Amino acid sequence: MVYKLFYWPSIQGRGEFIRLAMEEADVKYTDVARKPASKGGGVKSILNLINDKETAYPVYAPPILIIGKKIISQTPNILMFLGARHKLAPKNEDGRMWVHQLQLVISDFLVEVHDAHHPLAKSLYYAEQKKEARRRSFDFTSSRLPKFLNYMELVIKRNPSGPYNLVGARISYADLSLFQIIEGLRYAFPSAMQKIESDYPRTISLSARISKRPRIRRYLESPNRIPFNEHGIFRYYKELDN
Amino acid sequence: MVYKLFYWPSIQGRGEFIRLAMEEADVKYTDVARKPASKGGGVKSILNLINDKETAYPVYAPPILIIGKKIISQTPNILMFLGARHKLAPKNEDGRMWVHQLQLVISDFLVEVHDAHHPLAKSLYYAEQKKEARRRSFDFTSSRLPKFLNYMELVIKRNPSGPYNLVGARISYADLSLFQIIEGLRYAFPSAMQKIESDYPRTISLSARISKRPRIRRYLESPNRIPFNEHGIFRYYKELDN
Repeated sequence: MVYKLFYWPSIQGRGEFIRLAMEEADVKYTDVARKPASKGGGVKSILNLINDKETAYPVYAPPILIIGKKIISQTPNILMFLGARHKLAPKNEDGRMWVHQLQLVISDFLVEVHDAHHPLAKSLYYAEQKKEARRRSFDFTSSRLPKFLNYMELVIKRNPSGPYNLVGARISYADLSLFQIIEGLRYAFPSAMQKIESDYPRTISLSARISKRPRIRRYLESPNRIPFNEHGIFRYYKELDN
Repeated sequence: MVYKLFYWPSIQGRGEFIRLAMEEADVKYTDVARKPASKGGGVKSILNLINDKETAYPVYAPPILIIGKKIISQTPNILMFLGARHKLAPKNEDGRMWVHQLQLVISDFLVEVHDAHHPLAKSLYYAEQKKEARRRSFDFTSSRLPKFLNYMELVIKRNPSGPYNLVGARISYADLSLFQIIEGLRYAFPSAMQKIESDYPRTISLSARISKRPRIRRYLESPNRIPFNEHGIFRYYKELDN
């Protein structure tokens, strides 16, 4: 069966966490909204799902994954599903819950990354909240970012299977997500990251190893990897990069 | 076995979602941080866990639930665990994932509730971001709040088992969480809620039914229910209640 992913076609956004998991799992998927509208793609394909007047299981927001009759949404939920099916999470309950817990920390952090450039409202442009974004991003780079990276570094360091992955001896969807976070932070806050990366050697090393995994590298070098840009969650605004 | 919950002792916060699930399940639990420090309680009991220098499974933030050797954190993760064990979620995989998906929507929304009064930084006082909070809360009450309530109302309406619960014919942890959200919104935004509640009759009715369930009512009337206050997630500031 071929997975169908529905996500905004012009940004990496939350969809990228799902793409990375599917790429590493080497499963077949269609990135539906990136196909032309004439072939059932485009933003309309997402809105059709969200506004579906029949479904008993309405979705709140993309990413949305469809496989057979299953319609799954909310990024950590989709990743938990894929992780169990494609060996991107431990099999036992404690291990599954631990990976999920880490993914939820990553998910919460992602909101903070977004709100660093949009502290007042999603519905306003960046230019309309630039001054406030400066204040929020100062708190982000000086306080929230180190708190998050300290935690991830500690989790890798304490991993009983060795200080290489977040969980156990195998790669998990949380490792892939952490890689994506590091890449995004480097794009959005290059100066801030350059100053502090050396404080988190295990996190940076894990991220580098993930970028070199054959399936991930193939994907990153392909046109399927949308470049970071100023419409996504990770945005580069020089004045926010403290 | 007795559950041990660790959460900031002076607010409902995220801990309340866990408390409501445990109260409805009628399980025994100790609310550790609410005991005096001399008896191993207080905020110190939480900090000791977070700063534990030995554990292979560090926690990022409370709430934290301990049962036997399991240490579980992140609210939706704890609820998923409790839901499976105490019949507060469907048994089949699709049902479990659907409840969890709704809980993740609720969790994301809770961050928006918090940030309505703290748009710039958790580390600053409300008074230091009052002007910005007015702008953010205007967007919250006019746009984000109706979007969330519309969605919850739709989910209840479409429930194939009848328009009474979010999922299936039995109460789930997501129903309990939705009740808590409604109670919190009524406390924090009484005027805004009064204006729009009648647009969401199924949501309001579900919430009323939950408040009357014997175990929930017993809990709400007990001193164990911490009153809402201006240190928690839901805060009443007249100037933000549009």
